[in-house]
Amino acid sequence: MLLDRLRQLGVSRIYGVPGDYNLEFLELVERTPGIAFIGTCNELNAAYAADGDARMTGIGAVLVTYGVGDLAALSAVAGACAEGVPVVVISGMPPMHAIGSRALVHHTLADGDYDNVMACYRQFTVASARLQPATAVAETDRVLHAVHTLKRPVYIQFPSDICYVDVDVPPLSPAVVKSDPALLAQAAGWVVQRIAQARQPVVLVDAMVRQYGLHDLVLRLCTQHGIPYAALSTARTLLPESGALWLGAYGGQASASGVADYVKNADCVIGLGVRFVDSTSGYFSQELQPGALIDVQPFSLTCDGRNMQGLTAADLLDEVAQKMEGMPPACPALPASPDHGAPASPDARPWGQAVFWQRVEAFLQPGDIVGADNGSSMVAMLHARLPAGCSLLVQPVWAAIGYSLPASLGACLAMPDRRHVLFIGDGSFQVTAQELSTLLRHQCNITIFLVNNGGYTIERMILGPQAAYNDIANWDYAALPAAMGGDAAAILSLKAGDLAGLDTALAQAARHEGLAFIEVGFTPLDAPAGLDVMGRAVRRYDYGIETPALS
Amino acid sequence: MLLDRLRQLGVSRIYGVPGDYNLEFLELVERTPGIAFIGTCNELNAAYAADGDARMTGIGAVLVTYGVGDLAALSAVAGACAEGVPVVVISGMPPMHAIGSRALVHHTLADGDYDNVMACYRQFTVASARLQPATAVAETDRVLHAVHTLKRPVYIQFPSDICYVDVDVPPLSPAVVKSDPALLAQAAGWVVQRIAQARQPVVLVDAMVRQYGLHDLVLRLCTQHGIPYAALSTARTLLPESGALWLGAYGGQASASGVADYVKNADCVIGLGVRFVDSTSGYFSQELQPGALIDVQPFSLTCDGRNMQGLTAADLLDEVAQKMEGMPPACPALPASPDHGAPASPDARPWGQAVFWQRVEAFLQPGDIVGADNGSSMVAMLHARLPAGCSLLVQPVWAAIGYSLPASLGACLAMPDRRHVLFIGDGSFQVTAQELSTLLRHQCNITIFLVNNGGYTIERMILGPQAAYNDIANWDYAALPAAMGGDAAAILSLKAGDLAGLDTALAQAARHEGLAFIEVGFTPLDAPAGLDVMGRAVRRYDYGIETPALS
Repeated sequence: MLLDRLRQLGVSRIYGVPGDYNLEFLELVERTPGIAFIGTCNELNAAYAADGDARMTGIGAVLVTYGVGDLAALSAVAGACAEGVPVVVISGMPPMHAIGSRALVHHTLADGDYDNVMACYRQFTVASARLQPATAVAETDRVLHAVHTLKRPVYIQFPSDICYVDVDVPPLSPAVVKSDPALLAQAAGWVVQRIAQARQPVVLVDAMVRQYGLHDLVLRLCTQHGIPYAALSTARTLLPESGALWLGAYGGQASASGVADYVKNADCVIGLGVRFVDSTSGYFSQELQPGALIDVQPFSLTCDGRNMQGLTAADLLDEVAQKMEGMPPACPALPASPDHGAPASPDARPWGQAVFWQRVEAFLQPGDIVGADNGSSMVAMLHARLPAGCSLLVQPVWAAIGYSLPASLGACLAMPDRRHVLFIGDGSFQVTAQELSTLLRHQCNITIFLVNNGGYTIERMILGPQAAYNDIANWDYAALPAAMGGDAAAILSLKAGDLAGLDTALAQAARHEGLAFIEVGFTPLDAPAGLDVMGRAVRRYDYGIETPALS
Repeated sequence: MLLDRLRQLGVSRIYGVPGDYNLEFLELVERTPGIAFIGTCNELNAAYAADGDARMTGIGAVLVTYGVGDLAALSAVAGACAEGVPVVVISGMPPMHAIGSRALVHHTLADGDYDNVMACYRQFTVASARLQPATAVAETDRVLHAVHTLKRPVYIQFPSDICYVDVDVPPLSPAVVKSDPALLAQAAGWVVQRIAQARQPVVLVDAMVRQYGLHDLVLRLCTQHGIPYAALSTARTLLPESGALWLGAYGGQASASGVADYVKNADCVIGLGVRFVDSTSGYFSQELQPGALIDVQPFSLTCDGRNMQGLTAADLLDEVAQKMEGMPPACPALPASPDHGAPASPDARPWGQAVFWQRVEAFLQPGDIVGADNGSSMVAMLHARLPAGCSLLVQPVWAAIGYSLPASLGACLAMPDRRHVLFIGDGSFQVTAQELSTLLRHQCNITIFLVNNGGYTIERMILGPQAAYNDIANWDYAALPAAMGGDAAAILSLKAGDLAGLDTALAQAARHEGLAFIEVGFTPLDAPAGLDVMGRAVRRYDYGIETPALS
């Protein structure tokens, strides 16, 4: 029943690890056409993979076993909650008779408490339930309605002995959240009036556009009325990042020159799900004109100090666009498009991160799905110019190192026809390294750049540039694909420590189908542009000290 | 201040991963003599390593960064709670000013909530605190008193901006829990009377003996009065497993022949911290005479239906032994010592797990610390006869696969002068595989047997013997030590797929100093004795079905 519902919501893959309390559920999965079980090496990685899948397809699912599995996955689920990613977590738990008798079983504290895991999940999900036959349908539909509507994780506990219980299932009729027509008309009127009066309007995009699939509506509004748009790091590549209306990436003082000034002087900032987080706002350095922000959230609007509930962002954008048909377009003075500098000639620059990131920009192709792990790689990619149709897979709010490798697994399986590229530092890679084997197992078409700079360079930029605690073991990374089960004939594994080596590797990778793994070596304090500024901002914020890290 | 206190409690190593909220704390660690920071690849592994260290030394410590780190470590911390292992978890969290203003920062849900992580940790710790300068001393001492006294995990949140704050610290004076003399005398009297009247007494040992270091007291009582003792799987190797008084391992119907009968007929079962968990009791198949159990817990006694609080197990055991001086010893009729069968001649048995486990029994030496991961390896080692002075490192209650590799790291660093041996299946190994690199980095003296049977054999014994969901990717395991940074000259890495290969590998490993890694290959349904019985019991308990798995 649950599996039918998941399929109806668009779930095609369930990531997870077998365990004694979920085996019967796995038997059901095997018998359900249209849903595949994707085994991962551990549960943290399963949940990250489901997150990556959900960002591509709109929904993800994970299956764990109780206690050990639930809690191992929790950090990734919290990440999905922080970033607004709809993931269904299913936990195969001890049988009803054990729960009822408070039996002391393994995978629990063996004290009869069966509520502690749920207490944790409640903190990081928008709905949760423990199924029992009598209420299974209603509870399942309640929880799945929440993930479908609120676009954040939900959690379902499935006692092992009720998998087989048959229940009568009415057809799925997900309640559609509709706006109240009168309120919607009024709210749209406020927005239209503000846009009509605006001298310098801008649309500022956040993750809500991905969550609710609003790109077409946003583009229609911007195009129709000539309104430029900018994107927070949580919303990069959701809208085209070229063309006259693309203002650039916005992150407060961390924005490209011109963008911050334009937003600062804008008299009408249409914020779409905007949330200024330290890591997305240059440490709260955003500056807006007082009252400029029109704050559109998934189910509410705040405009000129007035708040209105009872509408959806999608309906509001549609209504505004309709009301504005025929109105003359805005003609704001846009800043010159951000200058990335003319590419230096290959031999003019010494080997290092600067030239590396410049070169890989040229390696990327339209339509690539580009993952970048937290730290140097993400900072570099947020500063890069990506070809048309690329999708950036990053996690700037939860910002857990190791996210991107298993998340790329989910993205690869969700989008097998696109090329995948991943940039990941050595410190991040070691967190979740084993999932490389699952990428190999499923013959994923991905090029992985292992940026090896001998430890946690992002932390060195904050504190302890030379400290031993920021060092990590140096692996022979290029040997890993073969060691983790890769077919030597099918994989490409290379090391590059200079420009010539990189160019050769890039040329080979460009021709390669399947998994290519390229380790690129740098010195520990070599970092992409922007990382030192970020390190300084973090140091000031976290520790209240200004002393330079690079002493 | 916190670091001084930790040192006074016996902490020499803090495992963890740097993160921006704990760097200043790491700076303090660097300046504190006597405490080393041991960086691990991820936080789950750090907490398991601290668990392994604590089982050897009496206390362990972990340092994580807020949110991402806390939650990634949580499953391991819950495991320490389930198994009674004292671990101090320190979380470097966002600065006080951010908490106070409910700032939207990374590593949180970015909703201003700074209580959700604490809500999770409260479920799996015996004390927790968020430090602030005004109350830091009292709060630290309260929490550390709890870990010291209750021998389970505690949790301390350390805002990043108060690391430097100086506080006046009174000398540490840990409150000692003492028994009330009158109550103690009365309780000891009950126990002595029961022992004196007993025809067939037995001491049944559980993890409490490790937690509170009671081995000498227990041995004294048993030896002095001729009382045999048996150990649950949670308490194996805490007392000598040879000699006239060693009855054997007890696990209900899963016990060796003779042991279950002896315990079943005993008229006086002195239980030391006994907790019958499914996995330690042959799925609740323990049988005791009504009223036979004298239930000694860390701070209470239940005897003949009377419960007494206000005493400690240590004081009680001491008082009982004193009162019994001069009393004639019990002379119970002991069963013959368990028969492991005469070793078959090498060529008489085909290659398989049966002969493998027999051979490695001979490989083990007195004093080895023997880790065995959950699944086949643990079941095999619980059935093995270990040489004198061996310590078994297992996690039968929390029973998380992947536990033993990072736990062995902690055990190795805590006990560098002993030889370490680890048995781990391929499924378990993949969960936490990256920590192999940290074992290599610290030149640990450990022989790792990678038992490769192509997936989750323990799950196959429960359900889905041929199911694809129980398959995993096959790695070239023997290539990993070199790929993960091992010095090729210093490591021994071998594969064995038959008896001759195993014997050669064992001979080489016996002579090797440092890390030896031996992959042994088996077919998927080849399992140690006892695993099929266990699988059947689990299937019946979890799913209520009896159909044989091996169909």
